[in-house]
Amino acid sequence: MAQDPALTYLRHGQSPFFRLPVAVDAIPPGTRAVLLGVPFDLGTTYQPGARLAPWHVRRVSALVQPYHPVHRVDVFAEVPAVDGGNAAFPPFSPPAMREAVEGHVAAIAAAGAVPFLLGGDHSITLPALRALARARGPLAVVHVDAHLDTSGPETWGEPFHHGTPFRHALDEGLVAPGALFQVGIRGPWGAASEPARSLAHGARIVPVEELEARGAGAVGADLRRALEGRPVYVSVDVDALDPAFAPGTGTPVPGGLTSREAFALLRALAGVELAGMDVVEVNPALDQADRTSALAAHLLYEGLALRAVGPR
Amino acid sequence: MAQDPALTYLRHGQSPFFRLPVAVDAIPPGTRAVLLGVPFDLGTTYQPGARLAPWHVRRVSALVQPYHPVHRVDVFAEVPAVDGGNAAFPPFSPPAMREAVEGHVAAIAAAGAVPFLLGGDHSITLPALRALARARGPLAVVHVDAHLDTSGPETWGEPFHHGTPFRHALDEGLVAPGALFQVGIRGPWGAASEPARSLAHGARIVPVEELEARGAGAVGADLRRALEGRPVYVSVDVDALDPAFAPGTGTPVPGGLTSREAFALLRALAGVELAGMDVVEVNPALDQADRTSALAAHLLYEGLALRAVGPR
Amino acid sequence: MAQDPALTYLRHGQSPFFRLPVAVDAIPPGTRAVLLGVPFDLGTTYQPGARLAPWHVRRVSALVQPYHPVHRVDVFAEVPAVDGGNAAFPPFSPPAMREAVEGHVAAIAAAGAVPFLLGGDHSITLPALRALARARGPLAVVHVDAHLDTSGPETWGEPFHHGTPFRHALDEGLVAPGALFQVGIRGPWGAASEPARSLAHGARIVPVEELEARGAGAVGADLRRALEGRPVYVSVDVDALDPAFAPGTGTPVPGGLTSREAFALLRALAGVELAGMDVVEVNPALDQADRTSALAAHLLYEGLALRAVGPR
Amino acid sequence: MAQDPALTYLRHGQSPFFRLPVAVDAIPPGTRAVLLGVPFDLGTTYQPGARLAPWHVRRVSALVQPYHPVHRVDVFAEVPAVDGGNAAFPPFSPPAMREAVEGHVAAIAAAGAVPFLLGGDHSITLPALRALARARGPLAVVHVDAHLDTSGPETWGEPFHHGTPFRHALDEGLVAPGALFQVGIRGPWGAASEPARSLAHGARIVPVEELEARGAGAVGADLRRALEGRPVYVSVDVDALDPAFAPGTGTPVPGGLTSREAFALLRALAGVELAGMDVVEVNPALDQADRTSALAAHLLYEGLALRAVGPR
Amino acid sequence: MAQDPALTYLRHGQSPFFRLPVAVDAIPPGTRAVLLGVPFDLGTTYQPGARLAPWHVRRVSALVQPYHPVHRVDVFAEVPAVDGGNAAFPPFSPPAMREAVEGHVAAIAAAGAVPFLLGGDHSITLPALRALARARGPLAVVHVDAHLDTSGPETWGEPFHHGTPFRHALDEGLVAPGALFQVGIRGPWGAASEPARSLAHGARIVPVEELEARGAGAVGADLRRALEGRPVYVSVDVDALDPAFAPGTGTPVPGGLTSREAFALLRALAGVELAGMDVVEVNPALDQADRTSALAAHLLYEGLALRAVGPR
Amino acid sequence: MAQDPALTYLRHGQSPFFRLPVAVDAIPPGTRAVLLGVPFDLGTTYQPGARLAPWHVRRVSALVQPYHPVHRVDVFAEVPAVDGGNAAFPPFSPPAMREAVEGHVAAIAAAGAVPFLLGGDHSITLPALRALARARGPLAVVHVDAHLDTSGPETWGEPFHHGTPFRHALDEGLVAPGALFQVGIRGPWGAASEPARSLAHGARIVPVEELEARGAGAVGADLRRALEGRPVYVSVDVDALDPAFAPGTGTPVPGGLTSREAFALLRALAGVELAGMDVVEVNPALDQADRTSALAAHLLYEGLALRAVGPR
Repeated sequence: MAQDPALTYLRHGQSPFFRLPVAVDAIPPGTRAVLLGVPFDLGTTYQPGARLAPWHVRRVSALVQPYHPVHRVDVFAEVPAVDGGNAAFPPFSPPAMREAVEGHVAAIAAAGAVPFLLGGDHSITLPALRALARARGPLAVVHVDAHLDTSGPETWGEPFHHGTPFRHALDEGLVAPGALFQVGIRGPWGAASEPARSLAHGARIVPVEELEARGAGAVGADLRRALEGRPVYVSVDVDALDPAFAPGTGTPVPGGLTSREAFALLRALAGVELAGMDVVEVNPALDQADRTSALAAHLLYEGLALRAVGPR
Repeated sequence: MAQDPALTYLRHGQSPFFRLPVAVDAIPPGTRAVLLGVPFDLGTTYQPGARLAPWHVRRVSALVQPYHPVHRVDVFAEVPAVDGGNAAFPPFSPPAMREAVEGHVAAIAAAGAVPFLLGGDHSITLPALRALARARGPLAVVHVDAHLDTSGPETWGEPFHHGTPFRHALDEGLVAPGALFQVGIRGPWGAASEPARSLAHGARIVPVEELEARGAGAVGADLRRALEGRPVYVSVDVDALDPAFAPGTGTPVPGGLTSREAFALLRALAGVELAGMDVVEVNPALDQADRTSALAAHLLYEGLALRAVGPR
Repeated sequence: MAQDPALTYLRHGQSPFFRLPVAVDAIPPGTRAVLLGVPFDLGTTYQPGARLAPWHVRRVSALVQPYHPVHRVDVFAEVPAVDGGNAAFPPFSPPAMREAVEGHVAAIAAAGAVPFLLGGDHSITLPALRALARARGPLAVVHVDAHLDTSGPETWGEPFHHGTPFRHALDEGLVAPGALFQVGIRGPWGAASEPARSLAHGARIVPVEELEARGAGAVGADLRRALEGRPVYVSVDVDALDPAFAPGTGTPVPGGLTSREAFALLRALAGVELAGMDVVEVNPALDQADRTSALAAHLLYEGLALRAVGPR
Repeated sequence: MAQDPALTYLRHGQSPFFRLPVAVDAIPPGTRAVLLGVPFDLGTTYQPGARLAPWHVRRVSALVQPYHPVHRVDVFAEVPAVDGGNAAFPPFSPPAMREAVEGHVAAIAAAGAVPFLLGGDHSITLPALRALARARGPLAVVHVDAHLDTSGPETWGEPFHHGTPFRHALDEGLVAPGALFQVGIRGPWGAASEPARSLAHGARIVPVEELEARGAGAVGADLRRALEGRPVYVSVDVDALDPAFAPGTGTPVPGGLTSREAFALLRALAGVELAGMDVVEVNPALDQADRTSALAAHLLYEGLALRAVGPR
Repeated sequence: MAQDPALTYLRHGQSPFFRLPVAVDAIPPGTRAVLLGVPFDLGTTYQPGARLAPWHVRRVSALVQPYHPVHRVDVFAEVPAVDGGNAAFPPFSPPAMREAVEGHVAAIAAAGAVPFLLGGDHSITLPALRALARARGPLAVVHVDAHLDTSGPETWGEPFHHGTPFRHALDEGLVAPGALFQVGIRGPWGAASEPARSLAHGARIVPVEELEARGAGAVGADLRRALEGRPVYVSVDVDALDPAFAPGTGTPVPGGLTSREAFALLRALAGVELAGMDVVEVNPALDQADRTSALAAHLLYEGLALRAVGPR
Repeated sequence: MAQDPALTYLRHGQSPFFRLPVAVDAIPPGTRAVLLGVPFDLGTTYQPGARLAPWHVRRVSALVQPYHPVHRVDVFAEVPAVDGGNAAFPPFSPPAMREAVEGHVAAIAAAGAVPFLLGGDHSITLPALRALARARGPLAVVHVDAHLDTSGPETWGEPFHHGTPFRHALDEGLVAPGALFQVGIRGPWGAASEPARSLAHGARIVPVEELEARGAGAVGADLRRALEGRPVYVSVDVDALDPAFAPGTGTPVPGGLTSREAFALLRALAGVELAGMDVVEVNPALDQADRTSALAAHLLYEGLALRAVGPR
């Protein structure tokens, strides 16, 4: 039974994302997706710990099967993918993290593959957007989150932390005008002006109340129409989901999405060109029975499925 | 940066509700809301521990921001509020608890402020209603709960425990005729007669099945129409919510409200005159990653927001 | 107060299902339902531990009251029931488990009662179906699960485990043609062919996406129409529910049913003839605050209620 | 294999202490020990929840085997014992608890058996001592605890709670002069005078520091010499043990006994006449992996072994 | 900084034992130790789950550093070692597990390396002993455990489970006469005859009481003297340790070893020829903050250190 | 009963260390000790989260009573103390933390009081030593830890993190020659040279093996003799204790001190002049039932007791 892939996985004892091949030194030709862990949480404002998520999400991702019955596609057959290891950097240096992530993502894109990042906190998104925008030009971005993440240095005296990536992305022109979609947002906020920065850049904010009223599928269909024909980056902060579904996260906010809504939203994007994706803010120390890690693995899988059914 | 309120909060090291000023000895003039902890659980029939909730809810309430994006109001700017400390009483005396709570609530009302109580078990509601009904006359009451809480001494040989507050409230005339609304109720029950006492007083019972069928917002809108122009007390037992959303509670019942339904219900009451509120039955020993404590803080915040958008 | 049933329960210190009488040696005349624990998890492919569920579900089932306010029936008054103890067997022998369960279920059916099994993993369903099909002929089956459970020996080199019961049930003719209803199913799957075996036998598969779109009550009403007049077996794997609602299970899949959907589905079956039921895959070691055990008790209660409102 | 006692236990599905016969209505002739649960925690000053311990300790006690290799005795063969169920009483009435426990213990003693109580909080000890002192005259008492439990009403305005049983026992003359041994005691204390009341009655206090210096076995041997020929009551508060060994308790104090020290202390009492025993303050909601419940079961077993090797 | 081994480890994202190279297909020349996971728990009598231990122990073993300050040796420099992956086998077949483990261990020994197994339950020890005894002749065995593990089929109707490996090892002549040392043993036992089988083979049993009285180092020194010049297999069941130190195990027994005693015992064996080692019965689902997994990693490391300071 | 201090504490609802007065703006005259929280964990190499410890340790410190029965002193009567709040600083700036802590400690010392810091990670010790050495000259230091914490920038590319404070303290001359005592140290280490830096400065290292062999009290007595007449700083990393006693910490190492050993060590220092103390590395997210937070509170209390019995 040596050929049984499950036994092969068990035999090796290691935990690559989705039981994929590990390819740290070079991206094999034909690879269409590279999974990359980013063990970084120095940008956390409340409860840190997301740095350990890559090991846990890898481990539980072994249970995710390849065939997607809604999209009717064998995801890993359609999208040859590898576990590209983690971005590595001196652990006390946020600038080194940003440099490393930007470098890895640039290399993945240069190889013709799509990066799928697993954080780490939301700080990791900015360097990914930088690399992709440099390669592809300004991107369309679907940002699924409880928070807008457009804070500036006025709050904590630091311009780069997990509450700031989209401010920089907008200010640096990494997002195409009018092409930022922030979904799952909810209050309370520090001030009425909180969304001003997003709105000034033409962002579309879909609060969780609107998502519920219209349905996640309908919202997703809107997004797909707006996104068609453009390279799209999807960034999912697991705190977009309600703590009932994603308890293992550092700044939870009650009133969030269900797992089914998150899946429906992502599935409705079928047909867009996915240029990159991240799932961030999984904090294993706060999780229960690996539930949030497992959810994160499924969210990444939904992104891989978009790659499978999107334009090549 | 000494003026930064977040750093001021961090500097003090204490945990007042919502980072508010603590005012134990006297209620400052102009105060519109007083938060009061009631560390009491001697009325618990199954798993006790709610006595410790005030410390945990205070701690996690520090993350709640002031601006409510649905009501479009800066809640704490509109509603000057203080942490009034806890009701204090000899811990083995339920009558002393009732006396203390009634005294505190009467003093808050006399100062022109609205009391927001954080239990403790549901026993704490009766003395709050007594004080407010004495001050304002019979009240309208929105009671959000899995249980009707109209039991009598026949069950456990004791007239006052956490399954009885609304029986006494009805019997003592603290609730205006036809003005009790019990929402989120679900079975199983001890007998078909369980709602009889509520119905005899003209209460309107909204089982969770009806709430789901009509929508929490629609139910809330009904309540608002029925409640307009009357002083309203809102009592939220966190076991109204499904254990998925509020695991930290002593008598959980599957099949409850989602966090979003609870928020939608409360938000739909905008415009009513909130005379008082409590959130009860948070049991930290049974919680996971502080989720139920955080939810309780957000429920209190929704009540404060009602105060902000209601009649002055 | 010796007659107070609650005090009687407390006095004995034991934990029969729903505080029912224990009847291990013989089923009392007039019994309409027998609860049976099956402490077996040798059929588990991932995280074992369901063998201990009978003790935990019994303990927390003490909180379930008799009167069902939706069906308007006092379940235990209408359905005289007993705790029939556990199926007992040498613990390292799956064949001995199957033989024991089949024998117990046959005896229960022979006594004119309906078996309600609490697993244990899903392996326990096959012998229950064998016994009932022998007694009643091929059954209609409502199978609520995240997984189809129609695997064969090709996967793990073993024909009988928790991923295989419905394959055998179909192959052995235990299910009437076209009378298997698999509800709550979701991916990802190992291959596109995963449902082929079910479909070849005329099964109706209701993925969670369809259940959400049409509503659990509507799906249940369809099933009731299809099932009327036939003996029906209901098998509920708690992983049909989302891990937010049923965290204590060994192969969780995000995106599942809510507790309310599961209840609505079962309640919509009112009127069918329930021939047997099981609730399986509760894993106490992975549970949080007994939530999954409590949910399992409520699911069994919903089945007992179907017995109460169904044909005698 | 129907005669295998393990399978018989599994078959019944219930959880009597140590798999013993349940005898609630009458104590069978020849019974030498009766296990009694007391689900009461209204006397708790900090974290309540010990009321649920009887169900958990019963469940895990099933793993305790009969033969004691240090005492070289088959405990249950030597000491015919039964699970006498729980003391039952209206749950909101501490006086009713005291009356019930006193009645049960008196009945057990009258039947010639020795009571082994599993609390519940430490309030349950007083009525047990009352019943036994009435039957046997003033007792010698070995009290293993972090706390002296000789508080009076001055602290919390209530004379009877879990910090007071030995004050009453001394004041009521239930303990023979000079025959109270308080072992495992440690600070900090409210005042220097804390042990005054014990010392005034001639109690011998063995702080944990002395126990460590001399060894638990040596301390136990001292006690045995002092206790020989007298009826002895042993009361073990699990918070005598360090929280590392007994995390599931409501008022933990670091610096306590190890499990081995507790066992050595009890084993050194071999030869004394055990008149009664209790193990109290197990709080399942605070436990981890049932460790404290399992420890409590073993402590009771050590007491049963003392009965087995003591004078008949 | 690409050469920094810590960053290299982080970069790969995988979790080999002790950050060692993974060598699944062939054992590199010069390898002196091979770590092997055995994800098997079908031999568990109470709480299963040890099958998942290899993934967790690997993950936390990354924190173990190379230099042993007591033995004064850089363990991994002295003992070139690899992560040999897991033994792989059809997961429902205990005989296949035994065959696979025996094959792997034989291959490791044939390559001149020493196997270090991480279970899995204690069933995995028998095939390891079989392979080594075939290669080396009857072994000396140090068995550290709460239990004797010499049960036979009379208990559960099955000859091979986690309570039986040493019975078979003795019966099959895998252990040299008088060369079995069982340390940490404690009661209660099923019967006085429990150690009879071990004693009949000349085993030396060191109960935990003796270990405490003489000191773990002194006991270890005795063993070393008895073992010198013979190939020795060390089998450590983590339930030898007290549940305070090793809570994550399926059949815990209070009163066990401390971590320091376990280390002292193993360190005292310095100089013996270690022919193989296993650490078994780590159950991650019952663990707290990975403590038991970390302890297991350190126990394996102590074994590797014995290899480093022993005869080549 | 308004004067009852316990009720006063309950009434206020806040959680100052040991129920002490809070004094953030100015240190009251006559104050002999100031408790200071330092919510910082950006220096953590593995599992972060210690930033939240000040809130949890404060909360559980409420249970610590004033009278120390070993030292026979009412600690808080002898040592007037206040809760000085937290050091506050922009949370993403380690240099700002160091500056803030140094400033706070300098101010406390200038007021004639002794600082007691509760971290946070071990990074907070360096600025405390800097402030005190500036005020008092080079200090004697008792450092209780599993680790030596003398790493340099070669490991992680950063000179200041939680593994480096004592390197800087030695290099900066903050510690008097030969006056560093590192107790509880244990391996494994990265290299044989790990203690070289400490030894070069004349430090005395007491590995846990030596502490066990000689006894914590004897080791403490040695230290006292060496320390008499000099100002002493005590720094306790809770990972000095075994994870059984202090599970809530980010880099646990099995084989550590017991709680009793830690207390005995500190108590043996009675008579030295305590110039400052910290307890660090409590990580609430990894704790169980608040045990590690409670232990940390007791360790601080032991330090306060040293102040009470030391030279004024």
